Amino acid sequence: MRMVDLIEKKRDGGTLSEKEIQYIVNEYTENRIPDYQMSALLMAIFYEDMTDEEITALTLAMANSGEVIDLSSIDGIKVDKHSTGGVGDTTTLILAPLVASVGVPVAKMSGRGLGYTGGTLDKLESIPGFQIELSEENFIKLVNESQVAVIGQTGNLAPADKKLYALRDVTATVNSIPLIASSIMSKKIAAGADAIVLDVTTGDGAFMKNLEDARRLAHTMVRIGKLANRQTMAVISDMSQPLGEAIGNSLEVVEAIETLQGKGPEDLVEMCYALGSQMVVLAKKAETLEEARQLLKEALDSGAALEKFKEMIRNQGGDASIVDEPNRLLTAKYEQALPAKQSGVMTKLVANELGIAAMMLGAGRRTKEDAIDHAVGLKLHKKVGEAIQEGDALLTIYSNTEDIEEVKALLYQYIEIGETGEEPPLIHEIITE
Amino acid sequence: MRMVDLIEKKRDGGTLSEKEIQYIVNEYTENRIPDYQMSALLMAIFYEDMTDEEITALTLAMANSGEVIDLSSIDGIKVDKHSTGGVGDTTTLILAPLVASVGVPVAKMSGRGLGYTGGTLDKLESIPGFQIELSEENFIKLVNESQVAVIGQTGNLAPADKKLYALRDVTATVNSIPLIASSIMSKKIAAGADAIVLDVTTGDGAFMKNLEDARRLAHTMVRIGKLANRQTMAVISDMSQPLGEAIGNSLEVVEAIETLQGKGPEDLVEMCYALGSQMVVLAKKAETLEEARQLLKEALDSGAALEKFKEMIRNQGGDASIVDEPNRLLTAKYEQALPAKQSGVMTKLVANELGIAAMMLGAGRRTKEDAIDHAVGLKLHKKVGEAIQEGDALLTIYSNTEDIEEVKALLYQYIEIGETGEEPPLIHEIITE
Repeated sequence: MRMVDLIEKKRDGGTLSEKEIQYIVNEYTENRIPDYQMSALLMAIFYEDMTDEEITALTLAMANSGEVIDLSSIDGIKVDKHSTGGVGDTTTLILAPLVASVGVPVAKMSGRGLGYTGGTLDKLESIPGFQIELSEENFIKLVNESQVAVIGQTGNLAPADKKLYALRDVTATVNSIPLIASSIMSKKIAAGADAIVLDVTTGDGAFMKNLEDARRLAHTMVRIGKLANRQTMAVISDMSQPLGEAIGNSLEVVEAIETLQGKGPEDLVEMCYALGSQMVVLAKKAETLEEARQLLKEALDSGAALEKFKEMIRNQGGDASIVDEPNRLLTAKYEQALPAKQSGVMTKLVANELGIAAMMLGAGRRTKEDAIDHAVGLKLHKKVGEAIQEGDALLTIYSNTEDIEEVKALLYQYIEIGETGEEPPLIHEIITE
Repeated sequence: MRMVDLIEKKRDGGTLSEKEIQYIVNEYTENRIPDYQMSALLMAIFYEDMTDEEITALTLAMANSGEVIDLSSIDGIKVDKHSTGGVGDTTTLILAPLVASVGVPVAKMSGRGLGYTGGTLDKLESIPGFQIELSEENFIKLVNESQVAVIGQTGNLAPADKKLYALRDVTATVNSIPLIASSIMSKKIAAGADAIVLDVTTGDGAFMKNLEDARRLAHTMVRIGKLANRQTMAVISDMSQPLGEAIGNSLEVVEAIETLQGKGPEDLVEMCYALGSQMVVLAKKAETLEEARQLLKEALDSGAALEKFKEMIRNQGGDASIVDEPNRLLTAKYEQALPAKQSGVMTKLVANELGIAAMMLGAGRRTKEDAIDHAVGLKLHKKVGEAIQEGDALLTIYSNTEDIEEVKALLYQYIEIGETGEEPPLIHEIITE
């Protein structure tokens, strides 16, 4: 087999076989296929697309390119959840204890993440004492005993994907449905998932700028999940404005606690039900999404989910008392309101620009080496479609520096107040097959 | 400027500016743009094509990426000729003295070439004593005094093209009209050409397998030649069977001499008139192609062209007496006829396979390091459309090894005798603008 012939085959619209794709991934991972051939193939894939069978083969080859976490000693169906990216996305913090409280085992390996705010790990680390580094043995023991544990990624998961992603980033081949789908699914499979729930975001704040692309990506992943023997469902959600009200690490933990206390923002609660009920069905703890939603609602209303969150914090060495006094987490030096300059209706609250504002405050990382300030961020008071009076606080800025004029200017630029405006849909589609 | 943005621009169907293309070529030549970004761009160009202005900018940037030969001290318009590749293509050997004899200055830098038979340099070196290494000063002096000199390429011509070509070869991006056109034209411009005549071959033995692609390539090069201030004309010729009768280095020199003696094969003579008259017109030695052809015919009939060839050989240290006794060049140990196995009409004589047979005998190089055997090759006695009796010699094989069964088997496989067959057209189109 010669790589140049495989590039030509794809370039001319051909379909690569499972063997050919395995060869490409293995040789590339071992540095026996050079980057310059791989990038030519990636660009050909960008134009020619791939069949579901090709994407599945690529996904499995990448998943198997390094360590594959073995969660078979955990009872039950391990369902993982993935979001294609958003701003103010606190769902993982809420879903982990929520679905665990109805008996779904949550053995979650999470990442740190670059960009707007930290990843789930960074958010959890804003809880005093919380340990994200556990041995695999201890991790599995915790999930078996308590249904839930969230730790940092260990081992060398899907190194082929890591290498490919870095190459795509500098060769204008990021934005390709088969490459995005296989990248996401390979990491979930390597992390030991038996089944997968996906939150495919769309809108200004998301990777998929329009609904049609989001739909294609979601359907592709659900189909290849089936072909790879990992039952998969997806929600296509709107990310034109941030989800919930908090953007920032400890702010989002506070919001998660409030949500588990039954006081969460409506959109965030609904998103947790939508994703959570898919997780419950895939874990075979309910027959239908409606039945699953009912179970979750009961767990929230009864306080079982909140109790599970406390248990999880205690299990991982954290100070669980913050669940009863979440405001102790709000330690930013300055809290400044951003007043509305005019009356009207909020028409725009551009998610990714608000994320950038949070990053400028220190809530996110520009590069891997950056430190995160857990305390800073934004708390939204108004969302798209809400009526506004001049002088109303649009949001509160939590910062550790007093001069935040640049951040304010950016916020004013991307928050629009007009005459009429409607609340955007939260969920565009539920995709179960 | 960032390369990843330029890749994305081309990928999305945009047009790269002259500045952007210069940046890409310069940075790539200096190894500041890595191969993996360049190959992604090449693949995007494969799909998106380039405008004439883009191809012209690419051509000039590559021409200027290294040394550019300055032929301005040679009087007159220096016209170069290029063929996109063929089998048994002896035209350069004939055209150099032929057009020089009507006053067109021929300052030809030639290459060695890989593949079926040697390049023009290898062919000339089968003439005893012929020197292809001259100083640039001596080269220019000879052309000024005698109108013609053919030497080996000196200096570092179009290194960007060399680097790009090697990359295209392993990334399935060779077969792209804008990339082929700019590669050819950049080398001609770097070699100092004021005007360019192109022989774009088409058919089984050629790079462009069909007429439509050949036509697009020819028109593209003629248009960008104009944009680059190098008047350019082209002939689209057929290469489904070899041109002329000789395939092999000294065999082709003998054929060139015979042609200059007025005894050449009809197709080869016609091709020399077609290409030569374009050279004469571009050099402004005639107004029309018809007038130019008349001049060339007179030079051939009067013996002036043959005399010019002798002069060129003498000038470059060769033994000019071989022009009077060309058979002295035929030094192969064995001459074996290939008899027809049946009667009929020749219907196929696949050019590239005959070229491979010649290479197997030792006439060509597989790798740069291979040595060439000047004496070996094939001499065709029948061409497509000719009637054949069983037992007729289809061709003679000149070899230095006695056992050539493998070569014979290959030849029989690609020479077809059927019931009816027509002589294929020699020239499909003449493109002057």
